[in-house]
This record gives sequence, structure tokens and C-alpha cells, in this order.
Amino acid sequence: MPLSEKLLIEHIRRRAGRGKRSRIPAGIGDDCAVIRLPPRHEALVTTDFSLEGVHFRREWHPPDAVGHRCLARGLSDIAAMGGEPIAAFLSLALPAKLPQSWVNRFFQGLLNLAHQFQMSLVGGDTAESPNGILADIVVLGSVPRGKAILRSGARPGDRVYVTGELGSSATALDQLFSGRKKKVSVTDFPRHFFPVPRLDAGCFLRENNLASSMIDTSDGLTTDLSHICEESGVGAMLNAAAIPRAVIGAARTPVDLKFALHGGEDYELLFTASPRPKIPPRIKGVRVSDIGVITRKQKLQLIYPDQRVETLEAQGWQHFARKSM
Amino acid sequence: MPLSEKLLIEHIRRRAGRGKRSRIPAGIGDDCAVIRLPPRHEALVTTDFSLEGVHFRREWHPPDAVGHRCLARGLSDIAAMGGEPIAAFLSLALPAKLPQSWVNRFFQGLLNLAHQFQMSLVGGDTAESPNGILADIVVLGSVPRGKAILRSGARPGDRVYVTGELGSSATALDQLFSGRKKKVSVTDFPRHFFPVPRLDAGCFLRENNLASSMIDTSDGLTTDLSHICEESGVGAMLNAAAIPRAVIGAARTPVDLKFALHGGEDYELLFTASPRPKIPPRIKGVRVSDIGVITRKQKLQLIYPDQRVETLEAQGWQHFARKSM
Repeated sequence: MPLSEKLLIEHIRRRAGRGKRSRIPAGIGDDCAVIRLPPRHEALVTTDFSLEGVHFRREWHPPDAVGHRCLARGLSDIAAMGGEPIAAFLSLALPAKLPQSWVNRFFQGLLNLAHQFQMSLVGGDTAESPNGILADIVVLGSVPRGKAILRSGARPGDRVYVTGELGSSATALDQLFSGRKKKVSVTDFPRHFFPVPRLDAGCFLRENNLASSMIDTSDGLTTDLSHICEESGVGAMLNAAAIPRAVIGAARTPVDLKFALHGGEDYELLFTASPRPKIPPRIKGVRVSDIGVITRKQKLQLIYPDQRVETLEAQGWQHFARKSM
Repeated sequence: MPLSEKLLIEHIRRRAGRGKRSRIPAGIGDDCAVIRLPPRHEALVTTDFSLEGVHFRREWHPPDAVGHRCLARGLSDIAAMGGEPIAAFLSLALPAKLPQSWVNRFFQGLLNLAHQFQMSLVGGDTAESPNGILADIVVLGSVPRGKAILRSGARPGDRVYVTGELGSSATALDQLFSGRKKKVSVTDFPRHFFPVPRLDAGCFLRENNLASSMIDTSDGLTTDLSHICEESGVGAMLNAAAIPRAVIGAARTPVDLKFALHGGEDYELLFTASPRPKIPPRIKGVRVSDIGVITRKQKLQLIYPDQRVETLEAQGWQHFARKSM
């Protein structure tokens, strides 16, 4: 059953978060949403596709995980600016034959995450899709004027930090793509199916003026760090032993280093900060690892425990795993 | 050739409007765009799909018209709130084999329209599409606090007005769908291929506190007026003779009344206003027609010159022409 615009609006009206309603004087069911920003704040806007066959597969990803990941992508971008989310907008095109239960569970996943961060889904667009499920999420957030943490502020001598652990998503996808597994479990790969955006850590860094630059690891550590380096006109030396590798299953097997280095969709925060004051080892309950240093030389390098140095290519998530999903 | 994210960013950096740059402290190539709203303004956000096979066909619509219409849909929503556009975001998924020339002309159409209204394309997302061209446009605008013109303000006794002429798009699509024509010309149907959103007229109405409610005619007069009526808890009586029908070609043949009543995608402004002060017959160079009156009875009715009264069903663009594109 296709989801009509009316149905989408009903979905939103009935179940959307009631968190920041006072910031949303009008919107649901009007031509535009009208949103009041907090005083002396600037608007943050980000938009991210979730396309069947590109960002997810119906046989691999349960509908609530698809909805959750769809919104998480946008929220993670807000986190990477040190911002706070206000409202989301969903453009959703569904094939005519998609079961209503899929749609309901998709919304459940998306709205659960929205509630968790006291934000609302307040609008969007709907259409019937000629092929496959197409979602585009827009998140509007805000940040005090002039306080957004950009990619361009890294300086030589700054330390490089990352939250949480890396490589979980890439390992899950590697198992699926290789055909070694037909399915992988949510329990083994929670960060792949239900990534929690690091909004609290991002806000903490901004409020305390701790980060000189920041990005989220949606494309993978090497690619995302190379974005920071490019925008800041610097390079970086990473410490291989310090990269926090995700652990899988009850055996807590660490993922392969290459997945932690190049695999995307972990939605952790990657940031730089001057060596003083020290960054705490945990921020808002999330582990923070010091993984290297920003260099004047505009290269991305990796140093191993035996002092061997390797120059890294930003291999990019696209060239790595995404192509074939 | 697929359009990589890098290419999109280059496109935007090189060619984006330089109109309101001061409002955009950062953004292109960062996790989010950072946008400063004018003082004491609220944000307006709207999002609209343009999907191949649903909203356009490659054999019917030249690429620059697809780009133009894509942005026009969003701008028209901003106009319908009495708002001013600031920036646009484009999520664009393209099939691997799409010629680069198509992409260039698409951007040309979109950016020409952006320049016309001194606004910038400042971000978005890109992906490779498994099937067909998928675009989702987000427009961020603003309006002085509390001044947005909503759908819910129509009162019994208010007059109903519409800008421009109606039915051009529906007539073009009828000729194409029926197979009577393989192509229709831009000259005959400028409002179908290159609709100019009524931003100036919308601002004028808001600045002068003239409209009690407003919507744009994206879904067709009957459907859009029924949205106003539903949100306002009222009905309307339209005057058949007063509906401004578009004229086609050198012969200036008026379109069929049913296309003017039910056909969508004309992107005119439909608004209500108290009978005093009088609404001028032209606003910012655009014709304005008085087409009926808001009634207490919650019905949509049409009165003919012979006083015959017909109850209208909001037939909806979806059920009318869109289904099969």
C-alpha cells in the first residue's frame, strides 16, 4: 500500500516528538514548517539519502533499523558541528507493493530515535517510487552564533581524537557482501544497525571550546580525516596501536585494522584539539581515544608499534564497500 | 558518468549564487551548512521530490526544465508562506550511465532560477541511483516572527484569490499522456516547463497584512483550496466564470475549465483576504483574480453563470494525471 501524503502527515501528527514543540509554531500540513531558533543561534542544515540498494538492503536490514539509520545520518552531521537538533523532515518514496507493516516499523525506528533526542519529525514529502524505497532526511539544528565546529580549524601540533570504536559497520557489511553470512545480528553489530549519534559529546566539546575541528566518521577514518586535513591545509600522523577497534560478539574479537581505518558508517566523532587542556578519556559516557597528531606536512600517515611509517590513501568508503550494495 | 560528491561540491562552489553569502558563514563541504537568519525572523523549511517517471520524464522534459522545476517547487512553498528564500540543498542520485551534459544542463536550469532570486545552493547529498534520476530539493527561507501566512486563517466572508492563470501544466500533460503529442513546446507551455514562483507577490501580501490564508497551487485549485478549507474549518463557493484559465499558443485558446479547476503544478498563489481593503488587480506585475468567497458551510462549490451550483470533489492531482507519468 503506498503511503499517501495524508497518511504521512497523520503519522507525523500522531506520533512525532513533542519535545521542542514551542520552537515549531506551525508546519505540519502547511506549505513550509515554521521554526523558531533559540536566541543568538545560527541554523544548521544537513540532508542525507537512504536509498534501497545503495545504503541498505531489505533482506539485510530490518525496517526499524532502516528508519533509525536514516535519521541517525542527519543527527550525526549536527553532532559534528557541535549543534543541537530541532526538527527533521522526511522525503519518502515507496514502491506501490510495499507492505504497510514495513512502513510502520520504519517510522517506529525513526521516531524512537527522534524521541530519544527530544526532537520532532515535522514535515517532508511523499511519492510513489517506481523502483525501491527512497528516503531523504533533512535535519535542522542550531548552534550559538559563530560557535559551529568546522572542518577547517585543525592546526599542526593538535592531537587527533575519535569517540567510541571503529570498524563495526564495515565488518558487518564485509561478512554480508562476501556471502559468508546471509544475515548478521543486531546483537553482534549494534553500531551498524542502530548507531547512536554522538550529540551529547559534540555539544560538550563545543560548550567547552575544546575542539579545533570536527567531522563524523560516516565515510571512514581515513576519508574523513583527509577532509579535515584538506579543509585545514594540514596533514596527520595516526598511531596504529591507538585506533579503537570495535569488538564483535561474545568473544569480543577486535575487527581488522583496515575496517577501523577505512570503513564508514560508524557515526563516531573525529576531532582535533590543542594538546592542552587535556581531553578527558570519556565524554558524556563515551570513550574518547587520542589516535595521533596533526602535522604541517600535508600527508596522511600511519605509524606502527615497530616505528614503521606507512602513507595512507584516503580509500573512501565508496570505493571500498558501497559500490556493490 | 556518475556525479561524485566532490563534483557536486565543485559545481556548487563554482556556480552557486553569491546573493546572500553573508547569511552563510560556512557550509559548502562541511557536515552541515551554517546559516544566519535575519534578525527577528523564523526559519521556513520545505522539501520536495523530483523523481524521474513520477514528476518528469526525460523524453518530455529538457534537463534545464527539470532543474528549474525542481527548485521552483520549493520556492513556491516559501512564497506561499509570504517568506523569502535564503538557501537550497539538493540531494541528487543519478544513474551511472547518465551523460554529463544532462547533469550540466540540469544544474544550469536550477542555478539560473536560484540566481534570479539571489539565493544560493549550499549543500546536499549525492549517490548513484540504481534506477532513474532522483532529486530532493530542500529550501530554507525566513519570515518575520509570527508573520507566516498559514492555511488555517480563512474566515467566512473572505474573498478567494488566485495569481496568474491556471491549467497550463495539466493541459500539457494531458496532451502528452493521451499520446496526441510526443512533445509539447516550451513556448506553448512556459508555465509547465519554467514556472516562476510568485515570491514577490507572496512577500507583498505578507508585508501589507493582506492575506488571511495562503497556499500554492501545486496540487490543483480544488485540492489546494480544500486544504485551506480543512485547516480553517470553512468551505468555499467558486465562481466558474472568474477562474483565470491559461491560454495556449498563438491562437490563445483557453484551457478546458476542468484543467484549471483540478490540474496541478501551476505554482500560483491561492489566498483568502477580507473583502476590505480591496486586493489590487495586479501585484508586482502578476494578475490577481477574485474567484469566489469563503463560506461557513464546509463544502467546496462552484457556481456557473446560469446560477447552477455544483459541489466539487477535491479530485486531486494524484488521481488525475500523475499516476501514470
